[in-house]
Amino acid sequence: MLGKYLDKVREHRPLINSITNYITANDCANILLATGASPIMADNSKEIEEIVDIANVLNINMGVISDDVLEAMFLGGKHANLINKPVVLDPVAAGATKYRTKQAFDLLKEVKFSVIKGNISEIKALFAGEFNTRGVDASEEIDESNIHTLVEFVRLSAKKINSIIFVTGKIDIVSDGNKVYVIKNGVDEMAFVTGTGCMLSAFLSAFVAVESSIESVVAAGCMMGYAGEKALITMKENKTGNSSYRNYIIDEIYKMTSEELNKGAKYELK
Amino acid sequence: MLGKYLDKVREHRPLINSITNYITANDCANILLATGASPIMADNSKEIEEIVDIANVLNINMGVISDDVLEAMFLGGKHANLINKPVVLDPVAAGATKYRTKQAFDLLKEVKFSVIKGNISEIKALFAGEFNTRGVDASEEIDESNIHTLVEFVRLSAKKINSIIFVTGKIDIVSDGNKVYVIKNGVDEMAFVTGTGCMLSAFLSAFVAVESSIESVVAAGCMMGYAGEKALITMKENKTGNSSYRNYIIDEIYKMTSEELNKGAKYELK
Amino acid sequence: MLGKYLDKVREHRPLINSITNYITANDCANILLATGASPIMADNSKEIEEIVDIANVLNINMGVISDDVLEAMFLGGKHANLINKPVVLDPVAAGATKYRTKQAFDLLKEVKFSVIKGNISEIKALFAGEFNTRGVDASEEIDESNIHTLVEFVRLSAKKINSIIFVTGKIDIVSDGNKVYVIKNGVDEMAFVTGTGCMLSAFLSAFVAVESSIESVVAAGCMMGYAGEKALITMKENKTGNSSYRNYIIDEIYKMTSEELNKGAKYELK
Repeated sequence: MLGKYLDKVREHRPLINSITNYITANDCANILLATGASPIMADNSKEIEEIVDIANVLNINMGVISDDVLEAMFLGGKHANLINKPVVLDPVAAGATKYRTKQAFDLLKEVKFSVIKGNISEIKALFAGEFNTRGVDASEEIDESNIHTLVEFVRLSAKKINSIIFVTGKIDIVSDGNKVYVIKNGVDEMAFVTGTGCMLSAFLSAFVAVESSIESVVAAGCMMGYAGEKALITMKENKTGNSSYRNYIIDEIYKMTSEELNKGAKYELK
Repeated sequence: MLGKYLDKVREHRPLINSITNYITANDCANILLATGASPIMADNSKEIEEIVDIANVLNINMGVISDDVLEAMFLGGKHANLINKPVVLDPVAAGATKYRTKQAFDLLKEVKFSVIKGNISEIKALFAGEFNTRGVDASEEIDESNIHTLVEFVRLSAKKINSIIFVTGKIDIVSDGNKVYVIKNGVDEMAFVTGTGCMLSAFLSAFVAVESSIESVVAAGCMMGYAGEKALITMKENKTGNSSYRNYIIDEIYKMTSEELNKGAKYELK
Repeated sequence: MLGKYLDKVREHRPLINSITNYITANDCANILLATGASPIMADNSKEIEEIVDIANVLNINMGVISDDVLEAMFLGGKHANLINKPVVLDPVAAGATKYRTKQAFDLLKEVKFSVIKGNISEIKALFAGEFNTRGVDASEEIDESNIHTLVEFVRLSAKKINSIIFVTGKIDIVSDGNKVYVIKNGVDEMAFVTGTGCMLSAFLSAFVAVESSIESVVAAGCMMGYAGEKALITMKENKTGNSSYRNYIIDEIYKMTSEELNKGAKYELK
């Protein structure tokens, strides 16, 4: 049962440093606070190593990649590897431009990631040599028709780099190169809230900080999706829209107990 | 009837790249998603040309003008001109400092804009040689007493640079140098929400992406103001305040149909 | 009675320039608008002196300290001193890294601040030579058991640098080196909203802009805490969570009258 991973986060209150983007940073900080973790967002290369020393995990999000911040990503990631702190990568829009794709490849070369989370376009750009991303949108939807092919692609990619890969979509696929889980929580309306992807990678970093197993990551994925399901009910009841929906999603994370997560999580081992 | 422009946005789901500021970027992304468009916010000069290649419009917002980002504005704008993609300018606080005003002038010199949106101070700073902006506040209110003079000023300015100019105020004035529309949607309380100006320029970029006519821009202006009117009713009913009001405005954009826009739009051809 | 300081802010509508971080900038702008002030957030060193010329106060927040922005902090702060505009410092996470602590010390050396606001870890890092901050969390809680020692520490530190020091905690301590006030407004749940600290330093800047007395700063502190208390009731009634709570806090600032502040403020002169 996945609730125990949430309990761990709330017990240990891990410190998460995110090198992230200004578009969604506020929501990422609030979702981390909602789950009981402590967010910091230091991104200056001059202090990143000291920050990694005190943090429990480093979350690297490529949403905005100014030169200074990229330098902090490389330095921080390598230092985290050196002192055995987990590092999470969200290769936002990898595949969309040559520059961005190259930076993501270079990060993969120089830093060992515990978890890489992206949509299917981003993950394909990094692991299948395909370059057809339309911005941050997934150009291919994961559904029952292609799930078997994609499950195998994700498993092999994860095996190749010895990391957990988390592919988001209508159905999420998570693999550590050995086991593969699919997650069926979540609703389409989450795509109308900016940063749900960034929020997920920040959020799962808190789970990785307390336990780096695939099940811990799956717990984060189910919880995020389940919060989206519950928040959608509130959005419809209140007749609001996507901006309020954003608040409701984070609110549901804040309120969710491990018992509720156990009941609401929809996942299976493939 | 203006609803057809909204229908076009929802049908084509244009990809909007904004080079914008960190204060209001999140709300700008959510309002674009609310209208059915896809926001990206890449601002690194090293990838901006590739990003412009895949985007349908480039929205340049001068809220924060660090050196790197300014470079991306120039490069991105010129590249967009080269490949005939529309460019929108929000010259935030032009007139407030010499540095900022110079950058805005230089952008106007080097880039051809489809639409320039500002308050009357900003537009005067650029087109009337007046430098009396108080930060981002308009120092002169547009109302019935001065509307005739201002309409002519806006029409002549738009004609001079062959762009659509959108001046925000109690009454908005929009001109392409030939036709002039005034918009009477909107309420004073919107000034208590940070970024309603930035949201408008992002939002109208989605309309420009699908059709660059003055009527398409007027549709965006009416819709934003009408959303503000509807959201104000919710704010008063719920007895909340300006932060919730921000959410309600975006929520109203999310929920608004083209029929509602047709009914609620208050504009006239001068 | 503290309500008169709020009245002054709403009468004068001061212009606040914040050099601040992208995580919480939007909420800081909205809380300033809620109180009747005008926020701007220019942080480019090339225009900072001109911006300080037109602003009524400069708020320096060290949440994110990229090189360019640090330069603007030093230049802007020194220029404000030169022309007798008040400067507020929020030394976010001072003590967490050597780099950050050094920058804070250098700012204290080169700029005279009217108010310095931090949690007890940050203030100790700057004034007691202690370096044990856990990110932005206070490592020591202020309560009845240690209040007497801390009151004296804060008073002496404020006296030493001839500024007002505002230490946040379960009980806030504010001193100008002579008088000491304690503030008992506020609730624990505010720690689950990112940026309540940043919002407080932005918010109190508006009060400093209209009157730089310790009582004016105490008014801001009481109002922020009291808004948090009122917003918590709404959060519990609506069964929401920390993201909606953020909106409610700002909403309460927007709605609060000086009479309500007079009634709700819980503070005493030590």
